[in-house]
Amino acid sequence: MKQLGKASVENIKNDLVNLAKYNSTPENGITRVLFYDEELQARDFIKARMAENGMTVREDAAGNIFGTIEGSEPDAAPVWTGSHIDTVLNAGMFDGTAGVIGGMEALRLIRESGLSHKRNIEVIVYTSEEPTRFGLGCLGSRAMAGELTAADMEEIKDQDGLSFAEVLQNLGHDLNDLQAVKRKKGDVYAAVELHIEQGAILDTKNIGIGIITTISAPTDIKVSVSGTQEHAGATPMEVRKDAMCAAAEIMLGLEGLARNAGDYSTVATVGKVEVFPGSTNVIPGRVDFSIDIRSADMEDKNTLVQKLKAIVKCVEAVRGVCVDLEIVTHDEPADADPRIISLIETACRQSGQSYHLMVSGAYHDSMFVSKFAPFGMIFVPSKNGISHHADEWTDFADIAKGTDILAETLLQLSQE
Amino acid sequence: MKQLGKASVENIKNDLVNLAKYNSTPENGITRVLFYDEELQARDFIKARMAENGMTVREDAAGNIFGTIEGSEPDAAPVWTGSHIDTVLNAGMFDGTAGVIGGMEALRLIRESGLSHKRNIEVIVYTSEEPTRFGLGCLGSRAMAGELTAADMEEIKDQDGLSFAEVLQNLGHDLNDLQAVKRKKGDVYAAVELHIEQGAILDTKNIGIGIITTISAPTDIKVSVSGTQEHAGATPMEVRKDAMCAAAEIMLGLEGLARNAGDYSTVATVGKVEVFPGSTNVIPGRVDFSIDIRSADMEDKNTLVQKLKAIVKCVEAVRGVCVDLEIVTHDEPADADPRIISLIETACRQSGQSYHLMVSGAYHDSMFVSKFAPFGMIFVPSKNGISHHADEWTDFADIAKGTDILAETLLQLSQE
Repeated sequence: MKQLGKASVENIKNDLVNLAKYNSTPENGITRVLFYDEELQARDFIKARMAENGMTVREDAAGNIFGTIEGSEPDAAPVWTGSHIDTVLNAGMFDGTAGVIGGMEALRLIRESGLSHKRNIEVIVYTSEEPTRFGLGCLGSRAMAGELTAADMEEIKDQDGLSFAEVLQNLGHDLNDLQAVKRKKGDVYAAVELHIEQGAILDTKNIGIGIITTISAPTDIKVSVSGTQEHAGATPMEVRKDAMCAAAEIMLGLEGLARNAGDYSTVATVGKVEVFPGSTNVIPGRVDFSIDIRSADMEDKNTLVQKLKAIVKCVEAVRGVCVDLEIVTHDEPADADPRIISLIETACRQSGQSYHLMVSGAYHDSMFVSKFAPFGMIFVPSKNGISHHADEWTDFADIAKGTDILAETLLQLSQE
Repeated sequence: MKQLGKASVENIKNDLVNLAKYNSTPENGITRVLFYDEELQARDFIKARMAENGMTVREDAAGNIFGTIEGSEPDAAPVWTGSHIDTVLNAGMFDGTAGVIGGMEALRLIRESGLSHKRNIEVIVYTSEEPTRFGLGCLGSRAMAGELTAADMEEIKDQDGLSFAEVLQNLGHDLNDLQAVKRKKGDVYAAVELHIEQGAILDTKNIGIGIITTISAPTDIKVSVSGTQEHAGATPMEVRKDAMCAAAEIMLGLEGLARNAGDYSTVATVGKVEVFPGSTNVIPGRVDFSIDIRSADMEDKNTLVQKLKAIVKCVEAVRGVCVDLEIVTHDEPADADPRIISLIETACRQSGQSYHLMVSGAYHDSMFVSKFAPFGMIFVPSKNGISHHADEWTDFADIAKGTDILAETLLQLSQE
């Protein structure tokens, strides 16, 4: 009798270790920034592995890579899996990559089982889930959801002033083809993403699989505080308009708001700070910084942003500085599809795998996929919850277990 | 009858405007960093102007430049003037340069007057008064005072990891000659520095000349806050060890201490901040920042540093972060010589020039010169008190007025 085999820990380990070699900071974690040399080489590596595993490979105008195994009715809406291979600076080797390599392995299992399935199954490498290069995450899946137009692509720029549109064109992509990137409801039957947890719940509770009910959505705000650049020795304290002190006050105010938010999932982070002119003996005239707010509760997030604006007004009034807030993204949390959740639960129960229903504090491409397709997410444990750091770790065997659940779920969906 | 002529506004303007052309940021203020191309070219410009004005030119092993006019007893201890030509990032065109160009003009007036003077008079360009390149200011005058040894020069490094010693050697300086850089008491008869105020007192009160009684001394501290680098979405607020929030708390604590300090002259500034890894969606694992404290009252400064350490201990305990404080400099305020103050006052009164006795909040090379010679300082107004900024401005005529007072004071001292 034909049946699904078990994921190979060896395959998963080899692919992840080989993928990790494409890295611009080999001494300090993994750094693979969208369309930089290492990332382009990593894309070639993935495409070669897809082809070796019998998939048809293509790339769309937004740089999303598809590896497809054909079903008996190739015109039916396909079933998707996949994640991303770009990283934040000095990251770990599992974030995103586990879902790409696990997805490829799941498709190999399904293809090699010889089990028939109606729908095509596709593993996708979404373009730039991380905001590292363009300050905006989920570029590929956002374009699929129709929330990143060609005009938007002209507008977002990297640190060298290059727009995302220019970079795509330099690589030979035709922006006239962007229409085909966009998906509408019904185009995709279902999507299931495998990912590491990036938190400590599964590791602490010693549970093998997390099943996501909701993805927290980010609100990203760019803040620019303008004060007066003056001499650090010759300017008395009471006449200063110190942009750094004003920024520090806003940062601590934000932290307080997030700590006291109504929803447990609400968090806020200042991760990037630039101080101008940046000399030890000059009072900063300008400080630019990023704010990243997440919550599974949209109302709670809206309240927090309103309170933040009140704090900013107060800091402006008291300190005589000017603060500019630019809301870059203000995304809605995404609920997973109850039927897909149930299929994943069944797969866990049938294989005797412990599982836990949970909120994803991190966002993922599935958040944008949710705009046009029902989705589910499978989490595997992160050692001590550390992620976006060189110490990020997930046992290869845990990824294999998640891959087994993923393969079973994809097979079920593709047979519907 | 031989007498001192008046400083030429034209000469001063031409020299300052020409000097300002040696600039690596022509669109955004003046940036001239020690021994970078622009600064080397500016040195050549100054040496050429010294020679054209009849001075003997030499440079010592620490890069200090001397232009000398000889007195009738050239072996007697000389009288000094001078300042610096290096800048902070995106600075103005008057800080330091006014004292170098004004000093050269004063020596021209004395030489051309034909008035006899016993002592040699020297105008000095001190090496790197600003800490821009090596994180430590007053390199040249500090070496003269014996507070920057060859070993110290090996230790301080620029952003490329080059030590000050290496840079000097690459330019052909012999560190064996450093012994001759050092001055002991008696080597220099007196030193008078002309400088822009860099504060708003003279401009606000519409007074032409400031006479310095004390130079506030800096305490420079490097702070490194280590927390835990984690995912900005997946890490709940209550388990975070956010290095940026901890740093912000220390910054605001420091601001509060300086605002409430016992001495009016006490100020504190955080001018340089680096956040690692610096991604919008990663909780900062480390934040490095500079602290610059100034006071005319050493005891008040000591108290502030002690209280800062208490705040740091508290932040460490509450937030579970580690904070490393490295005290880079902890200098003593310097009192000007009462006799030189009195000579400057007399020169002002004789020429009908309004003046004001004041503390210098900014430090200057005179602070280190004070370790081996009696000193005085002459301030001229800064428009709106703005300095260390492209908008820094002093009228050329105001510098000429200060130069007249300087020339008279130098002449008196050189005749003693």
